[in-house]
Amino acid sequence: MSRDRSSAEPNRSGNATLERLADATAAAGADAFVHVGDRFDDDLRYLTRFAGPDRDYAFVHVDGRATLCAPRLFAEQAEREFPGTVVPAGGSSASSAAERALEILDERLSSPLEDARVLALPSMPAGATRAIASAVDEVALEPIELGRAYKTSAERDRHAFVQRAAQRGMARAEAVLAGATAETAEDSRYDELRWRGDPLTTERLRREVNATLARSGVRNAGNTVIGAGATCADLHFAGEDRIDPGETVLLDLSPRGPQGYYADLTRTYVVGDVGEWERRAYDAVVEAQDAAFDALRGGAGTRAADVHEAATGTLAEYGFESGDVDVGMYHGTGHGVGASLHEAPSLSSEEPLEAGHVVTVEPGVYDPDRGGVRLEDLVVVTADGYENLTAYPCEIEPNPSRDETLPEHSN
Amino acid sequence: MSRDRSSAEPNRSGNATLERLADATAAAGADAFVHVGDRFDDDLRYLTRFAGPDRDYAFVHVDGRATLCAPRLFAEQAEREFPGTVVPAGGSSASSAAERALEILDERLSSPLEDARVLALPSMPAGATRAIASAVDEVALEPIELGRAYKTSAERDRHAFVQRAAQRGMARAEAVLAGATAETAEDSRYDELRWRGDPLTTERLRREVNATLARSGVRNAGNTVIGAGATCADLHFAGEDRIDPGETVLLDLSPRGPQGYYADLTRTYVVGDVGEWERRAYDAVVEAQDAAFDALRGGAGTRAADVHEAATGTLAEYGFESGDVDVGMYHGTGHGVGASLHEAPSLSSEEPLEAGHVVTVEPGVYDPDRGGVRLEDLVVVTADGYENLTAYPCEIEPNPSRDETLPEHSN
Repeated sequence: MSRDRSSAEPNRSGNATLERLADATAAAGADAFVHVGDRFDDDLRYLTRFAGPDRDYAFVHVDGRATLCAPRLFAEQAEREFPGTVVPAGGSSASSAAERALEILDERLSSPLEDARVLALPSMPAGATRAIASAVDEVALEPIELGRAYKTSAERDRHAFVQRAAQRGMARAEAVLAGATAETAEDSRYDELRWRGDPLTTERLRREVNATLARSGVRNAGNTVIGAGATCADLHFAGEDRIDPGETVLLDLSPRGPQGYYADLTRTYVVGDVGEWERRAYDAVVEAQDAAFDALRGGAGTRAADVHEAATGTLAEYGFESGDVDVGMYHGTGHGVGASLHEAPSLSSEEPLEAGHVVTVEPGVYDPDRGGVRLEDLVVVTADGYENLTAYPCEIEPNPSRDETLPEHSN
Repeated sequence: MSRDRSSAEPNRSGNATLERLADATAAAGADAFVHVGDRFDDDLRYLTRFAGPDRDYAFVHVDGRATLCAPRLFAEQAEREFPGTVVPAGGSSASSAAERALEILDERLSSPLEDARVLALPSMPAGATRAIASAVDEVALEPIELGRAYKTSAERDRHAFVQRAAQRGMARAEAVLAGATAETAEDSRYDELRWRGDPLTTERLRREVNATLARSGVRNAGNTVIGAGATCADLHFAGEDRIDPGETVLLDLSPRGPQGYYADLTRTYVVGDVGEWERRAYDAVVEAQDAAFDALRGGAGTRAADVHEAATGTLAEYGFESGDVDVGMYHGTGHGVGASLHEAPSLSSEEPLEAGHVVTVEPGVYDPDRGGVRLEDLVVVTADGYENLTAYPCEIEPNPSRDETLPEHSN
């Protein structure tokens, strides 16, 4: 059941991640690093590549040697995915994962377990932390810079794959929207959009998009945001709302790929006549995104907040305020994306961007009484600029055959 | 931003959950209950109904009053979903959620914060636990029986909805398998299955199934298990494998519905001639599942392990061993399902089943050199028997038009 491939196969980011762990362990005056969590812990996924089960498992790192204590029924999967040593763990709770981690520590450490100082992440469950603390000298809880913000070329390829799938999903949305017809609803003086005989809602559109994502080999992680009119101003609307002609339809697609990396793509459409507010908002956001891209042309070394300020400065020229406002842009211009949908760096940060950062560029403006417009691409910062992982035009009118213009979706 | 609906709208399981929290808090000699976590914490989802973001938020319960500290950008969603008081929290890390929780505690508690004893779950992140512990007298980490195993009729309806969607996905799989043709591969003496011009693999089949799940309004949670031949013996195979004629194709579908409840449905097929081992394994598992259902006829009060033992006893009659074996049945007969895919009760438990338990019934036999057969339904235990939430026949030969025989998928 146990197999050691740690020397044969480097970790996700080469051995850089394990070296960072070793450095952090030494800096904390610790003898080992331990983490316990389940499949939803993105740090653990990053450290292990293991898309493990919905019960806790443990990762132990001592003297450059990485060990995964995986639940017995998932040991085969762990062997396939984890590049280090896999040992089966018995139970299903966090504390039994911690107990197994303690056994591994006892085997691997050169000094007695009760004298050990163990480094751990603050996200480790308190129960597991307590179990480990009771057997060792001390557990030092400290955030560790794992280097997740830097993406290797393999990681960038995974982002690009998922982003292409998101584009397929968006093309499906355009086809549905373009195929909808405005009809006067019963008992109403207003037009409503109908598609395939029934009123078109955000939920019906979401199902079509999600089906295309699934067919492209990625999955929506419960976060296929689609708003219509007022619900666009709720930045994360995943509910049901009728889609009417003339109102903004905002789609924010962030599926996750099979290796755990996310896409992030937002476009906004209007079916039928475009009103004055909607036109101005759309034009403003297109220009704001262009300004953000201009700021990103500096590449590595660019102060992150310069990108945000370029976007908000342009919005101001269109009369849209930013910051803690009820109407305008009330979110940041972008965030890092990786094994988490939201991770470092933030484009509101004072820190310089670095080559290999994967970030969204997503200005938006909203009016809770009218609607909202957001446009979002996913880009990689490079030494002397940036590479856009997105190849999808920004047009307010939905195109019925957008998918025919998209690049091939391969992996 | 703040609205109090706690008196108007009961929690998910009536106010029973909040009463349990109050009882547990009193029993622990504590003044309040606090939990911190993100959207992937199923206890937090159960307590709040909030399908929150991928950053930490906090739940505080003092004197019967429930408060959710939600990240500011998700406050609107929290207002829609959480039946108690919503207060916006500023930052994005677990400790800032904990800081906000401390402010709420300070407001709500009648005695000074530094004298408070706070009850918390062992799954709370260690960093948040430390932050709270530094401001109060003591944090008591204890597992709390939230009563999640008991499902209200509303929760059962959610399970039934998702299970029907899983059935649609299975029907799609049958149609694909039935539409595949055996052809002799180039450079090979063996037949392979082809579908729509290309070799049929577990991944191609998975994408078709997942697209149908998405179109039915549910999502695969990265757990659409499909094995072919030997990979059926890996109980959670989510990788790529060629599907050959005559080998077992095992599909274990466990999508999650919009309110967070899971389905669980497994069927096994063989395309083409069925070999002796596959036939015997299939017949054994059908009979084992029937025996398990017979044991469940006792309903509430039935010792859970009686169900497991009924299944393994029948398998033994077919010559299949159970337990810690390499060939045979090496997992339990069932587990509870709810806001987690795996939760209490286990059908290996000595405890009696209770009315309202939702459990899988899933015997299986595997031979890593040949394949595996598993059949799984989802049922509700009732006072005098059980109700099967599954209406899907067990047939080894895929039916090309199964979907036409399924009940309507509504909700």
